[in-house]
Amino acid sequence: MDRIGVALIGTGFMGKCHAMAYGAVKAVFGDVPHVDRVTLCDMDAAHTKKCADEFGFARHTTDWKSLLTDPAVQLISITSPNGLHREMAVAALEAGKHVWCEKPMALSLADAEAMTAAAAKAKGQATALGYGYLRNPALQHAKQLIRNGAIGEVFDFRGSVDEDYMADPALPWSWRLTAKDAGLGTLGDLTVHLVSLAQELMGNIASLSAMVDVVHGERPLPGQPGKTARVENDDIAHALVRFASGARGVLSSSRIAHGRKNGLKIEVHGSKGILWLDNERMNELNLYIAEGEPAARGFRRILSGPLHPAYGKLCPAPGHGLGFNELKVIELAELLYAIEGKPSQSVDFKRGLEIEKVIHGFARSARDGAWVTIA
Amino acid sequence: MDRIGVALIGTGFMGKCHAMAYGAVKAVFGDVPHVDRVTLCDMDAAHTKKCADEFGFARHTTDWKSLLTDPAVQLISITSPNGLHREMAVAALEAGKHVWCEKPMALSLADAEAMTAAAAKAKGQATALGYGYLRNPALQHAKQLIRNGAIGEVFDFRGSVDEDYMADPALPWSWRLTAKDAGLGTLGDLTVHLVSLAQELMGNIASLSAMVDVVHGERPLPGQPGKTARVENDDIAHALVRFASGARGVLSSSRIAHGRKNGLKIEVHGSKGILWLDNERMNELNLYIAEGEPAARGFRRILSGPLHPAYGKLCPAPGHGLGFNELKVIELAELLYAIEGKPSQSVDFKRGLEIEKVIHGFARSARDGAWVTIA
Amino acid sequence: MDRIGVALIGTGFMGKCHAMAYGAVKAVFGDVPHVDRVTLCDMDAAHTKKCADEFGFARHTTDWKSLLTDPAVQLISITSPNGLHREMAVAALEAGKHVWCEKPMALSLADAEAMTAAAAKAKGQATALGYGYLRNPALQHAKQLIRNGAIGEVFDFRGSVDEDYMADPALPWSWRLTAKDAGLGTLGDLTVHLVSLAQELMGNIASLSAMVDVVHGERPLPGQPGKTARVENDDIAHALVRFASGARGVLSSSRIAHGRKNGLKIEVHGSKGILWLDNERMNELNLYIAEGEPAARGFRRILSGPLHPAYGKLCPAPGHGLGFNELKVIELAELLYAIEGKPSQSVDFKRGLEIEKVIHGFARSARDGAWVTIA
Amino acid sequence: MDRIGVALIGTGFMGKCHAMAYGAVKAVFGDVPHVDRVTLCDMDAAHTKKCADEFGFARHTTDWKSLLTDPAVQLISITSPNGLHREMAVAALEAGKHVWCEKPMALSLADAEAMTAAAAKAKGQATALGYGYLRNPALQHAKQLIRNGAIGEVFDFRGSVDEDYMADPALPWSWRLTAKDAGLGTLGDLTVHLVSLAQELMGNIASLSAMVDVVHGERPLPGQPGKTARVENDDIAHALVRFASGARGVLSSSRIAHGRKNGLKIEVHGSKGILWLDNERMNELNLYIAEGEPAARGFRRILSGPLHPAYGKLCPAPGHGLGFNELKVIELAELLYAIEGKPSQSVDFKRGLEIEKVIHGFARSARDGAWVTIA
Repeated sequence: MDRIGVALIGTGFMGKCHAMAYGAVKAVFGDVPHVDRVTLCDMDAAHTKKCADEFGFARHTTDWKSLLTDPAVQLISITSPNGLHREMAVAALEAGKHVWCEKPMALSLADAEAMTAAAAKAKGQATALGYGYLRNPALQHAKQLIRNGAIGEVFDFRGSVDEDYMADPALPWSWRLTAKDAGLGTLGDLTVHLVSLAQELMGNIASLSAMVDVVHGERPLPGQPGKTARVENDDIAHALVRFASGARGVLSSSRIAHGRKNGLKIEVHGSKGILWLDNERMNELNLYIAEGEPAARGFRRILSGPLHPAYGKLCPAPGHGLGFNELKVIELAELLYAIEGKPSQSVDFKRGLEIEKVIHGFARSARDGAWVTIA
Repeated sequence: MDRIGVALIGTGFMGKCHAMAYGAVKAVFGDVPHVDRVTLCDMDAAHTKKCADEFGFARHTTDWKSLLTDPAVQLISITSPNGLHREMAVAALEAGKHVWCEKPMALSLADAEAMTAAAAKAKGQATALGYGYLRNPALQHAKQLIRNGAIGEVFDFRGSVDEDYMADPALPWSWRLTAKDAGLGTLGDLTVHLVSLAQELMGNIASLSAMVDVVHGERPLPGQPGKTARVENDDIAHALVRFASGARGVLSSSRIAHGRKNGLKIEVHGSKGILWLDNERMNELNLYIAEGEPAARGFRRILSGPLHPAYGKLCPAPGHGLGFNELKVIELAELLYAIEGKPSQSVDFKRGLEIEKVIHGFARSARDGAWVTIA
Repeated sequence: MDRIGVALIGTGFMGKCHAMAYGAVKAVFGDVPHVDRVTLCDMDAAHTKKCADEFGFARHTTDWKSLLTDPAVQLISITSPNGLHREMAVAALEAGKHVWCEKPMALSLADAEAMTAAAAKAKGQATALGYGYLRNPALQHAKQLIRNGAIGEVFDFRGSVDEDYMADPALPWSWRLTAKDAGLGTLGDLTVHLVSLAQELMGNIASLSAMVDVVHGERPLPGQPGKTARVENDDIAHALVRFASGARGVLSSSRIAHGRKNGLKIEVHGSKGILWLDNERMNELNLYIAEGEPAARGFRRILSGPLHPAYGKLCPAPGHGLGFNELKVIELAELLYAIEGKPSQSVDFKRGLEIEKVIHGFARSARDGAWVTIA
Repeated sequence: MDRIGVALIGTGFMGKCHAMAYGAVKAVFGDVPHVDRVTLCDMDAAHTKKCADEFGFARHTTDWKSLLTDPAVQLISITSPNGLHREMAVAALEAGKHVWCEKPMALSLADAEAMTAAAAKAKGQATALGYGYLRNPALQHAKQLIRNGAIGEVFDFRGSVDEDYMADPALPWSWRLTAKDAGLGTLGDLTVHLVSLAQELMGNIASLSAMVDVVHGERPLPGQPGKTARVENDDIAHALVRFASGARGVLSSSRIAHGRKNGLKIEVHGSKGILWLDNERMNELNLYIAEGEPAARGFRRILSGPLHPAYGKLCPAPGHGLGFNELKVIELAELLYAIEGKPSQSVDFKRGLEIEKVIHGFARSARDGAWVTIA
């Protein structure tokens, strides 16, 4: 495949991020198709027009359904609010388009299942979900080390994902805090990332015991001084987990953790060593191996470089550092490989559904106050 | 009280540590009694004699019961194997002695209860358990900050305690790995410390859901090549907890965590900020407060110094650093204050029992696969 | 200006980096011209053709002089070997083109002066040198803090720049180690960056005392087993400096520092506080201010975010991290602002010459074993 | 030697620190003499009496000369103001006493030379200076690694020593800021430590080029509102150095560096690796060795433990951490070994003079604006 035409729905944080990835992927990777930025779609026509001009899209529209019938479009990016993912993704798949959809997949498990079913019925289209942190060279290096037995048999996983975007109790109430319009809270926004990393390194989670809480239960209603409204979705979600492999772990997550900006940390314990990384220092992997002169053992800070997966495509100089946006370029390359039928590490809807099952398992366990099995 | 006579049972790691504390406490604190090192007791007479000479004890013995009737002895340190704590502590209390006993309190909850009952019946004697990490100026500073509301209402606690003294699966089997002689494993050795810090900062734990596992289930029998024996006590213990205050948290612990030497980390999340510390860098407290110019906010690394509780007694220069042994000097000073009837932060048997209840709650929850309430 | 046509000379590390910046800058910044990638130029025709296709250039050539007469080209990127910078840059300026030239400016001070003279004679063309680290939001935030007096009067600068690309003494000899073809060694490759940061934050260096040494004086001749050749340019360059402001500082640099991958660290001491940053953690600025409750003071780790200069153009989420390549996008935007006559922070040839004077001052001071004045 | 009688002059920071070391050294090391704390001496009789009681000294006096003739005293600790070191040390040596003197040695090079001459004339007495940081197990481990060739041939040294005890420009003037009564400033207080570490690891410094500056040139006169007095001794001292070995380095030092509490950092560059340590994290040694799988290389954080020199005497558990005071216990043990004629690493007056020559070389170089040779 020499060229692929793409449409992008959404011009916000993730919309711009997809746009930058579309503009960069051919220069970075070389061995992918040329990307034709066909149409940009969002709700405000003037803004969409301006963004299309800046992002390099030939056309713009406010009618996402028009993309379905455009033969110039083979791949559609969905970065709209989560409540729209199901409808858009299913329609795109039914229209024969490849789909790149942001996480979380959908508001409900039923929606995620419907999307996965649509993908299963599709005739060769690829799907991908926006789990860019999985593409971090440091993380993929960790995965290689585990696969190669560098830290022995892995038996314990510690992970946390914390941000502070809702940390101030005085932040106003919005629809994002409702079950109906936003679905899960921290679980959908943050915990999904942690689960994606846990399952990437350890295999699937088989059962869990969780606590899922709203801490700041009322928030001020904007424009109505003195009035508050109820927060319906979770601020905090913690769990003990058992992996299908027999390993175990602890996961914690919070959207109300002051000072944490991209606080996604994972630590894997094995019989020969330990490795850990922290997304706030995403270009570093920390590794301890119980070998060599005992007096000189210690955790090593390994700076990402061209010896680590995909880094070299972006930069030949080690330690110079990749950024968040560049992980999306790698994510896109993996999707393009999938579209071309090449080996790919893209997270498709089927695998995304396995993440959704876990976070909905959190909610179930918390409700029942008991361990639950993940199907 | 101008002078106090002490006897010390045990000459190992903790025995020497108590001996050093006895030698130092008057010079460091000033406002405590002079300590007369009366008798050192251990099983090997020659070794005990040598140690008594080095540690500054006037006499030595192999008969711990002889200490009970010595009128020169008012305080007895118990650093013998855990299985002896109950008998020695109860006898010492019944003999009218003050008791400084190492942690964990005892092999079983029944033993710990018996010790607490003996302490309750005692006529004014003080008891203390070896929770030295609570005396860390950085930790006590954290406690002050929480009390003063610096990080607002605290609602989430993250803690882990990891060491690697059993991390190598090839380490030999010993009696320390049996339930009968050693009781709990990681829970008794490590988790108690984590629980002590959690309850110090957050108040008591009210309920929990735990997983407690033996990971390296068989270990080589020393001197019997090719043969192994079963490990009976826990390598790993994790839990979700709810505090009586309504706050929540996650605790994880392992004695098989490669590279962790004193990996006791705690993190407290509040409505205005977060603080955390890691015992491997015990002279640092990390603090984020959501105030001041937003562009300049970040986690602060606060080096311990004379502005933090008790540090100034040991050193007037900030950032020069205290060591593990010096925390035991502070611990001893607090016990001496208790003995004198002064305000004291010493962890007595009653409070120690509250820690024991939690770790036995871990075991109960893990056995039942369910949340349990801590009495 | 709505559009600008660009040509790029070079397809290596920096060539690809310029290409990525050209592809991204409009989407990222919006308020810059559209970039038309007109012609890519390098020595190997087939490789250049392939790169042109991947990088999005319409044409390709092996004749750099052909770019000079192409009316579709208004801006030429020069990422060729340093020895070619003077000829190309002067010719481009004389042909009326804007110039974006990688650092170091040139082999000799005379070359750099000639380039600056050509720029001065040019009729409104802009010039820019590749000092991308100056565009780091954390660094620009540091500059703002200094300007605003946050750390008081600044009086001391500590800086080092270390990499390990020549650290192994067994690495082979090449033309890059000769004075004739490569000019300075560490001074040209690394020290220029450090000087650029020092002068950005502290103003110009007025005098210095330096030591400049070749440490690994002979290296193996490739293909000639057992034979070595002499290394002519510097491995290490250190200096004491005095700034025109009256402040002082220490600079150290090495290309033979094992384990350092992008070890550019700077620290500024002021009468009210200190700030420091390390390019290996380029998304962090560390700040201590002597104010507020004394017991809670400490160095703060500030994660870059949209509150810091230019970050928000690339990412609205704080702490998510920018990468090395993205600094070049900001660098390009600043050049485009300069081309449009807008306020710009681009490092033009005049300012670049001030950096060159300092590194040649190092060489002079080291030769004479004396303090030297920078003109 | 089974017992040694000691007298201690001074009850301040260092006085108490020596007292604690005297009380601890036998319990910690075992293989040293018992220490009889004979007499404590300071100027205020009542305070000295109280301290003698707390520190465990049998007697107290305000007449330091009385110690010289006391046959019960074999070793005298001198922790009095620097201006008294020469008189006291020379007298003690002439009286046949061993001497443990705090750093810096003396106000002037002439004084240090006189002390060294007195030590040379002494009949077997040992001398020791208070360079406790040299006794840090992490530092001694670094020395072993260098000796064993772990990082290859060492060729570059980077060091800094920064504290903030004079950082606030509003701190009052005192006699400590005069040349007559206090001698050098930062050079005597801080730079000596850095030089001691540099020479311990790299051998002696042969020549240097320095800048030595007073930055906060006037400070408020206490009790005289609006008046200031001139600061005579140095705030900042930086130098380029050449070691006798042919290696080189950069040293920087400041007593006006906000936020630095014990900021003594050293870094040694070798042909196979680099090591560094920072006294604010004194229980950590950082090591990079260019060996093993390239993708997994990085700086290792090695926690001090019983595998590192002397640590095991204080604590059998790695990573549990030693404190500043405990380094003085090791320092004392080394002096006692010297007194007994055993192999010792104690820093005697002869070696102390080599440090003094360097800091006075700083002053000379700065005055002359030229490189100077250290005799």
